[in-house]
Amino acid sequence: MGKRIEAVDPLLLTARDAAWRIADGVMTSSDYVASCLDRIAEEEERVQAWEFIDRDKAMRQAENCDRRRRLGLPLPPLHGVPVAIKDIIDVEGMPTGNGTALDGGRNAQEDATVVRRLRDAGAVILGKTVTSEFAYYQPGKTHNPHDPSRTPGGSSSGSAAAVASAMVPLAIGTQTNGSVIRPASFCGVVGYKPSFGAIPRTGILRLAPSLDQVGIFARSIEDAALVECLMGPDDVDPDITQNPGPLSATAASESPVTPDLAFARTPFWDRADGETQLAFGELQEALGSQLEAIELPEIFARGAGWLEAIMAAEMARNLGHYVDRAPDQVSDRFRQLIEDGRAMKAVDYQGARDMRQVLRDALKLVFQRFDAIVTLSAPGEAPQSLDTTGDPIFCSLWTFCGLPAISLPLLTGPNGMPVGVQLVGAAGQDARLLRTARWLARTLSEEGEP
Amino acid sequence: MGKRIEAVDPLLLTARDAAWRIADGVMTSSDYVASCLDRIAEEEERVQAWEFIDRDKAMRQAENCDRRRRLGLPLPPLHGVPVAIKDIIDVEGMPTGNGTALDGGRNAQEDATVVRRLRDAGAVILGKTVTSEFAYYQPGKTHNPHDPSRTPGGSSSGSAAAVASAMVPLAIGTQTNGSVIRPASFCGVVGYKPSFGAIPRTGILRLAPSLDQVGIFARSIEDAALVECLMGPDDVDPDITQNPGPLSATAASESPVTPDLAFARTPFWDRADGETQLAFGELQEALGSQLEAIELPEIFARGAGWLEAIMAAEMARNLGHYVDRAPDQVSDRFRQLIEDGRAMKAVDYQGARDMRQVLRDALKLVFQRFDAIVTLSAPGEAPQSLDTTGDPIFCSLWTFCGLPAISLPLLTGPNGMPVGVQLVGAAGQDARLLRTARWLARTLSEEGEP
Repeated sequence: MGKRIEAVDPLLLTARDAAWRIADGVMTSSDYVASCLDRIAEEEERVQAWEFIDRDKAMRQAENCDRRRRLGLPLPPLHGVPVAIKDIIDVEGMPTGNGTALDGGRNAQEDATVVRRLRDAGAVILGKTVTSEFAYYQPGKTHNPHDPSRTPGGSSSGSAAAVASAMVPLAIGTQTNGSVIRPASFCGVVGYKPSFGAIPRTGILRLAPSLDQVGIFARSIEDAALVECLMGPDDVDPDITQNPGPLSATAASESPVTPDLAFARTPFWDRADGETQLAFGELQEALGSQLEAIELPEIFARGAGWLEAIMAAEMARNLGHYVDRAPDQVSDRFRQLIEDGRAMKAVDYQGARDMRQVLRDALKLVFQRFDAIVTLSAPGEAPQSLDTTGDPIFCSLWTFCGLPAISLPLLTGPNGMPVGVQLVGAAGQDARLLRTARWLARTLSEEGEP
Repeated sequence: MGKRIEAVDPLLLTARDAAWRIADGVMTSSDYVASCLDRIAEEEERVQAWEFIDRDKAMRQAENCDRRRRLGLPLPPLHGVPVAIKDIIDVEGMPTGNGTALDGGRNAQEDATVVRRLRDAGAVILGKTVTSEFAYYQPGKTHNPHDPSRTPGGSSSGSAAAVASAMVPLAIGTQTNGSVIRPASFCGVVGYKPSFGAIPRTGILRLAPSLDQVGIFARSIEDAALVECLMGPDDVDPDITQNPGPLSATAASESPVTPDLAFARTPFWDRADGETQLAFGELQEALGSQLEAIELPEIFARGAGWLEAIMAAEMARNLGHYVDRAPDQVSDRFRQLIEDGRAMKAVDYQGARDMRQVLRDALKLVFQRFDAIVTLSAPGEAPQSLDTTGDPIFCSLWTFCGLPAISLPLLTGPNGMPVGVQLVGAAGQDARLLRTARWLARTLSEEGEP
């Protein structure tokens, strides 16, 4: 009444815009969530992003948000905004499927820390999104929204696809190797995995606690910064020793000087396909001297192997019981992983873990000179298959070292599919990374103008 | 010159008193250090506490301290006070022997973090004290100052014996199982091992980084609190996440209320000898209702085994190369440890590590109700042998959990040898532990008066 109502498709809003509109009374959370549920109803058959949705519960949460506003109560940053939760993360009263029939029908008794914090931030918990089996390689049912014959990537497949197909503005995922950055790249959305040690994993399927990290899918860098509300110790997860937030203010600020960017081919550059290498070359050209090529020491070639060793050993410890219980109901690849992990010697496992500090120290020198490392998020477009989730190799080093990383949908492959550019920051310097990412995105969009 | 010179034997001073006297000009550091060196010259043949002493260098440091005072410069808390350093800790320009002939003749290029911090605090680094082989079980040459036919305990044998025989007021040691608390008990001095994660191990022989902890030997609880100057991150040791200091002020303050003390027999009480159990019983009687017996859950019986598993796996990783290099020049017990560690599976190693959090959580409940757990420091008097360093079993649980512990020389065994009472505090609550220890010591000494 008197407010100017703009004719904007709510599905195109960023989470931040949506929250502002709801707070301003331009839009209700109920209408917004209903739009998202309608969109899901339309698109889900094609995309298959969801394991579980409770429409009624979602609408009740939205109505509570609208009531809160009517009562004039203070409104938290995600007030009324629907969020999707990867199906290895507990949401009270919803099943946690972990991508396996072995966990069918088990309802979570308590919210994971991240879910509780999302609720505290005002979010509407919409439902559970598809994960690959135990968040490892065996794909779930999800299709890539840009081309249903292609994988959305994994393991946070449904979270990436749900944001990419405008079903939700935000989705939570996890990354133990490349499970946020890779699907973000394949699905053409922003994917951001904060520094290791920033977000508690309490209530999340424990794969490899030395590596497991929470991340977010969003439609903008500013939206990705909203993950700050999940950060900080929870007195349960012993590895949460830092809080690199608040992020939003710094992420939205201008860099005081032009950021210094390092282009690291990494020892795995040959695994990127030719077209993608060319596309990255154009980006390099556009940035000119603003992007300086660096060579990582040879030892980095072994980083991915160390990550895989830790994953095998820790997943054998934490998930081996599934194989014992039902060896025929797990994938061959998962069974093999558990077998490898169980065979591993404690000294070799420690050897792999110790190398993380060595690589981190080497990268500290890089980050003394550069604001971010720029590289590919994935070797190319999403593979044209639903039997794979693609290759995480461009994520392994940074996940191993626990560095913050963000994937921006800046490139396009030969088949018109998105390919992400990955920026990697210094440990704990998440705000600086996001600010640098914004600078890069804006600079490239200006370059593209006539 | 106008100052009143008291006839006090400097060898009987606490470190704190000595530092005050030096700062006040009642005594010079040079005289004090010379007294200590004379004492060492007298006693060393009998005690054998030292691996290396550089008399000239010590005197030069003391003279520098005296010069600093004459110049009117600000004086740090340990100004002019000599400190002994366990011979697995690097001191620039001195050899680090690690208790093995295999490391003979190797001079350290840099100070360990704790040594640098001692120097910053004004201490005179006197020399290196005997450790058992690789700070494990094979004894070094040191004798117990109270009875040379008995072990001083280990692995920080020389540090404990040097303080006990009045050669130095303070000595630094380390504890991976029971290497500070046990020798403190056997030698009748105060031994204090702060919370895991408080003192950086940079520049110290790496045995088992999940367990390795720095501690101090002193003649009083107030002196033990001086270890606060070693606390806090050093940007190298990745496990240093807290600084429970400052300790001195709280340690010296009065408890606002009478502390609540829990007597935990631990599952290992039967390993204490009968006379020692009786002596502890008298202490219990003296304290009456101020000491409440508690029963630890059964799972604690396995804690010592988990600690041993972690020690074996991590020492195999970090020290296995010594066995490869010279299998005949290491002790059988050490060789066996490395063999066991190398055979261990990564999943079993992780299993042991994971249990630490379980036991810590159980003990959190205890520390919600009690200020400290009180128990024995060792099963009894120092064994009458130089072929053993004694049994660390009364330390294993607390070291495994990384809790702060202090041993007070409050009991006497049947042969007149000292036996320590151990107080254990909540993780990070070191100041509260020291305050409680002072209360206990004072209360018992008042009880003892007519």
